[in-house]
Amino acid sequence: MRLVRFGEPGAEKPGLIDADHVLRDLSGEIDDIAGDHLSRAGLDRIRALDPKSLPKADPSRRLGPCVGRVGNFIAVGLNYADHAAETGAELPSEPVLFNKATSSIVGPHDDVIIPLGSTKLDWEVEIAIVIGETAHNVSEAEALDHVAGFCLCNDVSERAWQKERGGQWMKGKSAPTFGPLGPWLVTTDAIEDVQAIDLWLDVSGRRMQTGSTSTMIFPVRTLVSYISQFIALQPGDVITTGTPAGVGAGMKPPRWLQPGDIIALGGTHLGEQRLTVKAHTA
Amino acid sequence: MRLVRFGEPGAEKPGLIDADHVLRDLSGEIDDIAGDHLSRAGLDRIRALDPKSLPKADPSRRLGPCVGRVGNFIAVGLNYADHAAETGAELPSEPVLFNKATSSIVGPHDDVIIPLGSTKLDWEVEIAIVIGETAHNVSEAEALDHVAGFCLCNDVSERAWQKERGGQWMKGKSAPTFGPLGPWLVTTDAIEDVQAIDLWLDVSGRRMQTGSTSTMIFPVRTLVSYISQFIALQPGDVITTGTPAGVGAGMKPPRWLQPGDIIALGGTHLGEQRLTVKAHTA
Repeated sequence: MRLVRFGEPGAEKPGLIDADHVLRDLSGEIDDIAGDHLSRAGLDRIRALDPKSLPKADPSRRLGPCVGRVGNFIAVGLNYADHAAETGAELPSEPVLFNKATSSIVGPHDDVIIPLGSTKLDWEVEIAIVIGETAHNVSEAEALDHVAGFCLCNDVSERAWQKERGGQWMKGKSAPTFGPLGPWLVTTDAIEDVQAIDLWLDVSGRRMQTGSTSTMIFPVRTLVSYISQFIALQPGDVITTGTPAGVGAGMKPPRWLQPGDIIALGGTHLGEQRLTVKAHTA
Repeated sequence: MRLVRFGEPGAEKPGLIDADHVLRDLSGEIDDIAGDHLSRAGLDRIRALDPKSLPKADPSRRLGPCVGRVGNFIAVGLNYADHAAETGAELPSEPVLFNKATSSIVGPHDDVIIPLGSTKLDWEVEIAIVIGETAHNVSEAEALDHVAGFCLCNDVSERAWQKERGGQWMKGKSAPTFGPLGPWLVTTDAIEDVQAIDLWLDVSGRRMQTGSTSTMIFPVRTLVSYISQFIALQPGDVITTGTPAGVGAGMKPPRWLQPGDIIALGGTHLGEQRLTVKAHTA
């Protein structure tokens, strides 16, 4: 099942993309792709509907972030060996966690705004986990039972703010538009093996990142179990799982995003994002 | 104005404490102490009510966290010179930021649960800022216009998870019950000088922390302005502002919280928390 949110920012309606790629309106059935609707029971209720019975929606509508009311937006650092190498970091012995402000979340085709004072804006294609059931101290074996599904995430990063402003990374990960999520939330049943997802990212037509979740240092089930030791994960929490090699900071010389750049990214089963980079105004 | 939330966890009603210290029920007026009700206009609407016209509520009801639907729970590290010294850290040249999971938030008299695997549980009395209006790139001069008010926060911390598990502090700051907020949100108009608030904390009857916001390295208006460079702060976001000296990690030998410990803490205008430390069960 591919679940979406469509409409104006802050007023998105829930929807789904049916087997014929038609956008259907779920707003007569549920209020949002969020919270308890992401539980097994909630998803089963949506799954039980006949998609053809749902109203078609205008496919030209803006897609919003594919999850609403995100409580915690958690990110994993250095989870691919090739990316750790390009940043000059040691391989982590356990997952590195940081967070992104939930106010950074935008839709998959929105603009990425270079914030005031930013000089080193960078991209990161990632697969994100969407939590469906509360997860606290869950084992790796049961971890995926707590996951509603997955979506594409661009973990947009301001490297100067992340690395040169006092130790914790969240400063460089949290500005508005730094967290495009979507186009859709693909439920776990629709992905045979989450550790066999190909990921790619282009900047202005040039391929920058090519990777596969098969090379993650800590796979999805390990991440969910590990993080649940420290945090009681809630339905609608999002965990973005780290990026493969090919970020701008790893190039010699570094390549930073500029106004007018187009970031296109995608992954197997995850669809595509296409984001235009714009200068801050105000 | 002192705003509270009372009732069972997850089903708290909004209320206020009137000038005669009577708990009044606001649920006929607003749905929660949250979101847009924290704006200047929202608070003015509550202020315009005659408290005596509101139903009295049972004063023995549990108090919940004094803010609902917290979006981002941001914390400031090492913001008092005496605390930085006791931890052996350098004085920061700009504010150190980390985050706490929003699922850590509990009421002011709830239990603090020692999580599974925790060995170094510690306390931190702090004053927290509650955002009332969106704040992005605001100046220090206008920072307080974006603040709804303040509340007491115990920034409960697991020091092994914070310092020994891979770099970013959130792992040790985010477990359930690590974020008691309240008893009440005191609005900015009721505090003459937020940089003249005395703070104290006792563990099982022994005074551990005594401090004053007058000795903060980065005062409240600086913090709000600074953080707003990196994050678009939203109504209902909470920023806890750092702790003065006297944490368990700074004692020789260190003093960690144990089952049965009582943590009592308070601050001028902020009321008091009284939390019982309990072992994890499950």
